Amino acid sequence: MATKQPVIIEDKDQMRKWSRSMRSKGNTICLVPTMGYLHEGHISLIREAHKHAQVIVVSIYVNPGQFSPSEDLSTYPSDFHGDIQKLMAVPGGVDAVFHPYNLYSHASISGKVKDGDDGGVESKGVKDKGVGVVSCVEDGRLGHQTWVRVERLEKALCGKSRPVFFRGVATVVTKLFNIVEPDIAVFGKKDYQQWRIIQRMVRDLDFSIKVLGSEIVRDNDGLAMSSRNVHLSPEEREKALSINSSLSRARFAAEKGQVNCKELRDSVIKTIEEAGGRIDYAEIVDQESLGAVEEIRSPVVFCVAAWFGKVRLIDNMEINLSRA
Amino acid sequence: MATKQPVIIEDKDQMRKWSRSMRSKGNTICLVPTMGYLHEGHISLIREAHKHAQVIVVSIYVNPGQFSPSEDLSTYPSDFHGDIQKLMAVPGGVDAVFHPYNLYSHASISGKVKDGDDGGVESKGVKDKGVGVVSCVEDGRLGHQTWVRVERLEKALCGKSRPVFFRGVATVVTKLFNIVEPDIAVFGKKDYQQWRIIQRMVRDLDFSIKVLGSEIVRDNDGLAMSSRNVHLSPEEREKALSINSSLSRARFAAEKGQVNCKELRDSVIKTIEEAGGRIDYAEIVDQESLGAVEEIRSPVVFCVAAWFGKVRLIDNMEINLSRA
Repeated sequence: MATKQPVIIEDKDQMRKWSRSMRSKGNTICLVPTMGYLHEGHISLIREAHKHAQVIVVSIYVNPGQFSPSEDLSTYPSDFHGDIQKLMAVPGGVDAVFHPYNLYSHASISGKVKDGDDGGVESKGVKDKGVGVVSCVEDGRLGHQTWVRVERLEKALCGKSRPVFFRGVATVVTKLFNIVEPDIAVFGKKDYQQWRIIQRMVRDLDFSIKVLGSEIVRDNDGLAMSSRNVHLSPEEREKALSINSSLSRARFAAEKGQVNCKELRDSVIKTIEEAGGRIDYAEIVDQESLGAVEEIRSPVVFCVAAWFGKVRLIDNMEINLSRA
Repeated sequence: MATKQPVIIEDKDQMRKWSRSMRSKGNTICLVPTMGYLHEGHISLIREAHKHAQVIVVSIYVNPGQFSPSEDLSTYPSDFHGDIQKLMAVPGGVDAVFHPYNLYSHASISGKVKDGDDGGVESKGVKDKGVGVVSCVEDGRLGHQTWVRVERLEKALCGKSRPVFFRGVATVVTKLFNIVEPDIAVFGKKDYQQWRIIQRMVRDLDFSIKVLGSEIVRDNDGLAMSSRNVHLSPEEREKALSINSSLSRARFAAEKGQVNCKELRDSVIKTIEEAGGRIDYAEIVDQESLGAVEEIRSPVVFCVAAWFGKVRLIDNMEINLSRA
């Protein structure tokens, strides 16, 4: 199989120029935003992208704006060389990789520590009573201070324990949209809330971009693929399978008539806790509004976040009852 | 003089299509966003636009997202037919007028009352403890909920008494940018804070748009032009001249060596209050960060907001001391 070498672009202006030249030739451009350390889940997004566009741009950027100083920005895994190899192996390849060094060139970034450092995080300037939430993008006097907020959706689910997360995601995706200027963008439904937030943002802010959601990819043992899985010990990984297995059982129970969400949740929580996981949340919510429901009467999604050791994993399962 | 009839576009998608077709012919596009009821200040923005672009788009839209339910959305003046006549009289004219009926098609708008109504405002759903600030764009379950916030700059000056204002401005300008896709946008320095906020937003979110600020236009008597001036009685208007005259005196005093901001402010406040105005704020701030300064050592702007009767007016004066 012939492999395609993607052009690697680090500069914002060059990226936009490249993209515009592709569009001027009549191409449809699809952006697949990633934080790198690519796995089969990312590759499935690229396969999806190929169905809709002639030109595929993959961005690889670990966004400090979505990490709080106490989170794992400094230990987030990366392997740029390996990523490029994987992208070259995808049928059809990708056309460009946008790999900026820093998308917040007017801010100083904290929380990004050197290799070998034990993860200590610089705290200077990260407290801001006026704003309330602070990320690793430090708000200096003239620094980055513009944030896009999807004010209701960002507060649900992961937003409760990660208050800066979706503000950072919506903002960096806005930046990527303005730099790459794609016609289409593909997001994984593994990050269900993120996908819905970006969809809503695009609608509310009139971006001329079609946002597609791509199905979760699981390893053979059922664990949803995630770059963070690499941090799981074999034992923790075994325990973490309780997420997928309990969610699958919940969906099966719902299909058999158990539509009481409290009972479905209790059962999932019990299974995960018995396996040794620590639940962050386990909620059954409306697929669009992400509001909690008490009884399944319309399309819902069962979302779970749980800690296994030092690793926080998320997973979800859509439940679309034929009679709902 | 030959007059040019602008094309009037109400639909977002048609607007974008028109704009793209203009760009594909090699034109540079400049957007001049307005809320209509045009006066010489707006016309000066269009004159500025003609210096930089071949194609001029003027948007006319009274943005409910920047009014709180207690503000004057329902009484904001409008005269679309008159506006078009004025635009046709500008040398070079304008190419398109974007005049949408509602840019928040997924939300219900409150605070917009019928002609002849006494201004009562529908309050249903406008309280939202989680968000803290609420505009006339009502956040329904699936309604508009994405807002762009320039988190520090939005809190200064007008932001103190109008907490939803700049959130609404930044959001609607983002929407207009995404719909019209201009290369350049012109804002008036009369709304100094707004101009600086849009500049910062464009930088922080990587919009590929050049933001220009255009000088304040004053009537012969010195009053800064504003659509709201129409609501002033002749007597109130006479009193309101105290804003410009006191600011001019302050600048003169600064140029003569008076750089103590407290004394300059006290003098302006005294003059305006003696004339019968009610001060909202009178602050001397850094031109970029809009942070208050105690002594003039670098380029500053003296910003004032004051009420005369039921009309709130703003004005400002840049002070650039040659030795500062």
